[in-house]
This record gives sequence, C-alpha cells and structure tokens, in this order.
Amino acid sequence: MKIGIIGAGNVGGTLGRRWAGKGHSVTFSSRGEPSDGLAKILTESGPSVRTASVADTARDSAVVVFATPWPATQEAVNSAGDLAGKIVIDATNPLRPGPHGFELAATPSAGEMVAQWAAGAHVVKAFNTVGYNIMANPSFPGGPAAMFYCGDDAAAKKTVAGLISDLGFDPLDAGPLSQARVLEPFALLWISLALNYGYGREIAFRLMRR
Amino acid sequence: MKIGIIGAGNVGGTLGRRWAGKGHSVTFSSRGEPSDGLAKILTESGPSVRTASVADTARDSAVVVFATPWPATQEAVNSAGDLAGKIVIDATNPLRPGPHGFELAATPSAGEMVAQWAAGAHVVKAFNTVGYNIMANPSFPGGPAAMFYCGDDAAAKKTVAGLISDLGFDPLDAGPLSQARVLEPFALLWISLALNYGYGREIAFRLMRR
Repeated sequence: MKIGIIGAGNVGGTLGRRWAGKGHSVTFSSRGEPSDGLAKILTESGPSVRTASVADTARDSAVVVFATPWPATQEAVNSAGDLAGKIVIDATNPLRPGPHGFELAATPSAGEMVAQWAAGAHVVKAFNTVGYNIMANPSFPGGPAAMFYCGDDAAAKKTVAGLISDLGFDPLDAGPLSQARVLEPFALLWISLALNYGYGREIAFRLMRR
Repeated sequence: MKIGIIGAGNVGGTLGRRWAGKGHSVTFSSRGEPSDGLAKILTESGPSVRTASVADTARDSAVVVFATPWPATQEAVNSAGDLAGKIVIDATNPLRPGPHGFELAATPSAGEMVAQWAAGAHVVKAFNTVGYNIMANPSFPGGPAAMFYCGDDAAAKKTVAGLISDLGFDPLDAGPLSQARVLEPFALLWISLALNYGYGREIAFRLMRR
C-alpha cells in the first residue's frame, strides 16, 4: 500500500519505518531539509522509502498520515491539496501548555478539524494515544498494546485497522470520528504517566474483556 | 476503617457492599428514602452497614466517598459539613449531554472543584474510570483491572490505594489532584466503548509495563 507520512518526527518516522518493513511503499514529507532522523530512515530503509513535497506525497499516496505538531497541522493539510476520497490518518494531539499543566480543547476535536480541512477525505484518528517507542514495538509480556481508532468511513477504518495490525497492535474500533474527543484526552493519560509521573515510556494499555 | 458513602447508586452501592465484605464499617447516605438497591444492600450486608444523613455520615467516617450524579455533588459536599482533615474520594464524572455526544469541562476538573468545596479535606480522585460492574469484580483473565487515583496528600493517597487494593484492582498513582483533568476524560473511553460502541460493560484496562 502507498502510504504518505506528513511530519517525519518520532511518530511519523517510526510508523513509516515499520510499515516499510512490512512491505508498504512509504513517502515522507517534512518541512525544510530532512532531519537527521529522516536521513537515517532513508538510508536504512532502502528503495521502498522516499521523500517528496507535501503535495506530491499526498497525491501519490492512498493513505496519508498527519503526524505533525498540532500548530503545524492546518497548514500541512492545506499544503496537501485535494484529499477527497483519500484515507487520512490523523495522529495529532491538540496539546497546548497551560498554567496548570495540560489543557485540551476537546470540542471540536483535532480529528474533526482535520476532517473539515481535508474536505472529502476519509479521516481516521489513530496513533495518537501512545508514544513512538510503543509504535516501534507494541509487544508486552501481557500481550499486544491497544491501539484505538475512530472514523466515519467503514472502508477507511478497515484499511487503517490493517495498518495497525501490521505494527503488532491490538486494533480497537472506538466508533465514529467524534470519538476523537475521547481519544485525544486519552492520550494525556499515557503522556502524563510516561513523562511526568514516573512510569517511564515503556508502558501501554491493554483492553481486557470477559 | 469507617467509610462513608454519599450517593448509593450503582457505584456507591457496589463500593460500599464490597468494602463491608472486606471488614470495613460502611455508612451510606442518599437523598430521600433508601432506594430498593440500598435496601437490598442493607439487608444483605448485616451490621457493618448502616444509613445516616449526609452530615452524620461525613462526621462519623474517616473516608468519605462522593458517588453522586455530578449535578448533585456540590450540594452533597455542602451538606457534608466540615470535611477538613478527612480523606475524601471523589468518584464523580462531570458528564453532560451535548449535541455531539459527550462534552466535558476538564478545566478545572470535578475533582479540583470538589476539593475547593470540601475545604481542608484530602481529596483523592478515584473510582470514576470504570463501571460499577468492574468495581464489583475487577478480575480478568489477563489480570486485575487498573484503577487510577490522584490527589495532593500522600497519606490520603496511600489509604485510598489500600481501599482500591481491597477490591482487587491494580492501584495506579496518576499524580496530583490536577490529574483529575486527565482521569475524568479517561472515563469517557470506558463509558463510550461499553455503552455506545458495542464492547459491553465487561471490559477494563490493564496498564502493562516492560
């Protein structure tokens, strides 16, 4: 599958590298010169990985992943051009610093805003709820980490669920795109435990059923 | 330990019944006549469980649990009288219906508001992130369900962690009381999956580490 990744930071870089390892064709686009990290990925991954402009990346990809910092996301979506009919994975989180730690504008969610900007695209929210290190390896002694996704297009969600499975996660359908209002705040739990309250980054959630 | 439970609905009723079963002395307070559920609990649980007014319940308990519907919480806290020095467990969620499903005022959190109303109390946010059926039995084939708690008083948190363990949960310290801003939205994930998106109520999260 042709996957375009806009934003080649830790999240985008990890996703692209791993999908390339699973046989997908990955195009990265990041602003300006490739970062050291991206250069390393390009060297390591061989011909299945390339870089292109945002517009070319979006045009040539069946699945477009936005893994941009939130303040850069609207411009990135606009630069991507016509996204109608594309599967768009929104992996962003609308984090902003505040006087009392995290704050988050959950209504509307980043996912819904991306869908508004990417008119006609099939937007799926995913890959926003754990750190890139978990995306690099979602295996735990207790089983695979959960990866929630949500969106309004059933076919797009099925495709994204496959891409989640490709990485070794337990893919979990959280409902329609409006559930981004739930998945975005959920990201704060992982982030705060991992980075602020002593758990470290090697944690993940599993959804248990009985 | 003397535990007072304000609000004897599904959550309060389940917590009180189970703590009584672990040897704690439990007093329930709910508005008006005891509900059928509370009457059943009182019949089943024997002399370690009783009912009292909100004020008497709070006065006579070392740990006071608010398991009220959010709109009734401020009045319940005010009715409880002087809570200075008490351990208060806030199990509420500030849910309100909205045109697009759940909405939530996460800044400030319900937990922080309860702390403001319960001047001088040691408020711990807990028991807000899964349904009462999981509080009745947190055991899953994959291990015990996670129960996060947060608060600003170390001794109060230690006590509450013990009460969480008493029920069979994996108690997880999520940090200071301001983390209620994270734990309250987290509740929406369980609620939405369980009630709206087909997972059913017999689900819970486990925090995995490696």
